[in-house]
Amino acid sequence: MSEVNQRLLLRTRPTGRVSIDNFAVEETPVPEPGEGEAILRTLYLSLDPTNRIWMAQDSYLPKVAEGAVMRGMGIAQVVASNDDGFEVGDLAMGACGWQDYSSSNNAEIPWTPLPRGLPIPISTMLGALGVTGLTAYFGMTDVAKAQAGETVVVSAAAGAVGSIAGQIGKALGCRVVGLAGSADKCAWLTDELGFDAAVCYKDDDWREQLVAACPDGVDVNFENVGGEIMEQLLGMLNIGARVAVCGMISVYNEEVPPPGPRNLANLIFKRATMQGFLVLDYLDRSDEALAQMLPWLSEGKIRGEETIVEGPITDAPETLNMLFDGTNRGKLLLKVADPPLEVPTA
Amino acid sequence: MSEVNQRLLLRTRPTGRVSIDNFAVEETPVPEPGEGEAILRTLYLSLDPTNRIWMAQDSYLPKVAEGAVMRGMGIAQVVASNDDGFEVGDLAMGACGWQDYSSSNNAEIPWTPLPRGLPIPISTMLGALGVTGLTAYFGMTDVAKAQAGETVVVSAAAGAVGSIAGQIGKALGCRVVGLAGSADKCAWLTDELGFDAAVCYKDDDWREQLVAACPDGVDVNFENVGGEIMEQLLGMLNIGARVAVCGMISVYNEEVPPPGPRNLANLIFKRATMQGFLVLDYLDRSDEALAQMLPWLSEGKIRGEETIVEGPITDAPETLNMLFDGTNRGKLLLKVADPPLEVPTA
Repeated sequence: MSEVNQRLLLRTRPTGRVSIDNFAVEETPVPEPGEGEAILRTLYLSLDPTNRIWMAQDSYLPKVAEGAVMRGMGIAQVVASNDDGFEVGDLAMGACGWQDYSSSNNAEIPWTPLPRGLPIPISTMLGALGVTGLTAYFGMTDVAKAQAGETVVVSAAAGAVGSIAGQIGKALGCRVVGLAGSADKCAWLTDELGFDAAVCYKDDDWREQLVAACPDGVDVNFENVGGEIMEQLLGMLNIGARVAVCGMISVYNEEVPPPGPRNLANLIFKRATMQGFLVLDYLDRSDEALAQMLPWLSEGKIRGEETIVEGPITDAPETLNMLFDGTNRGKLLLKVADPPLEVPTA
Repeated sequence: MSEVNQRLLLRTRPTGRVSIDNFAVEETPVPEPGEGEAILRTLYLSLDPTNRIWMAQDSYLPKVAEGAVMRGMGIAQVVASNDDGFEVGDLAMGACGWQDYSSSNNAEIPWTPLPRGLPIPISTMLGALGVTGLTAYFGMTDVAKAQAGETVVVSAAAGAVGSIAGQIGKALGCRVVGLAGSADKCAWLTDELGFDAAVCYKDDDWREQLVAACPDGVDVNFENVGGEIMEQLLGMLNIGARVAVCGMISVYNEEVPPPGPRNLANLIFKRATMQGFLVLDYLDRSDEALAQMLPWLSEGKIRGEETIVEGPITDAPETLNMLFDGTNRGKLLLKVADPPLEVPTA
């Protein structure tokens, strides 16, 4: 077990890409648990566009304070405990932060213990069965209200949430069209994940390809990107269409966000709804989602793809950039450590 | 009674302001009704931002064809009839078009006969009790779901729909803040219509004034303008806020619509909903609205302000520009003629 706790403290707010230079790397002794406290060893860090938001601006959570440990979700193992809710060896999911060891006391985002004996890899609990899967599920059902027979377009469709959202659309009986950043990703979406069509947004004629892939217009836009892609899709909406705004990764790296779509008035002409949502609002309904997602996963209707990078916590900044470069496929994780202790199975 | 039918045929699509030069003025004999047809004399033309849309682009209706009579809503009197549904002398509301005489046969937007013996001026049926009032009512209730105690901001608040929408907000128990284009209009909103506050968007510090007028943030944005105003309001939304998009008058005169708001991602952070709507979708529920609006009007809770310009049908283009110059207050109407025949009262 590591003898030190390496921690990334936000030193400067990034402009554009993130770098390790935006952080002070601090090494402290592995903490001892105080009264009623447990100490957890970070195993997997979940790397998501929202990390980039947290570095730069107040959003649904306050931005990370300068000098504070970078906020981050992950899965960790209890390595020492004076807290009855945390048994040594057990796994938990929570805001461990970009550090090797964290405390069970986290007022901002409470820890969620993982059940023992899960028949799936730990990492799936951050992906298809974790907040990623819940985001896709509630976005597609509760927000987008996707119905069988409708046309659904998912942007960043090869990403963590997008790839699950599109597969949920298929499971619900929709025609699903994905937008992604390479021919390889597009082929993966159609050939492996069962999307009806996929368009590479880097092609010169991507707009024409998209129109051709949606002969009946667009009923649902599951939006992860924003910018030009959102503008194009706004122009293709059917009457009564829903835009579920999950993310706008195209703007998060910009110091001044670029202007929005010119054709917002189309929301009027099409009596369409654009709704932003956060998975945090749905965590108390996760049982409902898992009751649907577990069978879909076991039947193979949904595949939870993961890109797992292995490395120390100091690799987190550069690994995060993969989201913006589009070099991940599915859920992006940094594997920081194997469980140092045996994980109880029952 | 006029011996000719003066008609404005769309000749060229306007760029920027509308002019009579965009129309060919045609004079034809007053038509005789065919079998099953009635002929109606235009009395009041309703002048609305949507007229400008119809001239320029396909929207919820196809744009007016070049060479066709300009589309327009109004109130007209039946002057000759071979149609059992239309008795001579009766009034009806419908898409009379920018012409002195029109036909009861209009497949695009059916005529609505007005009940006899209305205890209100005819013009109110185009304003507070017409599509203007219905737009405000359903926008504020069904779309914006304004609740007592919430803060509602209405843009173009001194306009036809905005002035009614704000008063409905007050009747529902909301704190209502209006945006308008002059100090006079703002004073009218607060002193005469009972708005809690009003801000002139031409003031240098209108953003600061607006923030000060909304100490608890914004729960509902009843949006008629778009552009910078919408962007500012997006930044002020509370969690779970609703943006009811009724219109975007700031963009209708532009050949290329200006870019949209930079801060659309705030919809995510605030889990907010932006929904466009058209009163056309609510016409079958007009009884429900009138059951609320009539008592509010008779109790004086809602005042239906009108700016009535008198002139021939050829004045319609210049009069329409008043909407974009902001020189109207409340509903803008062109009174083309008094009823040429006696109106039956029972």
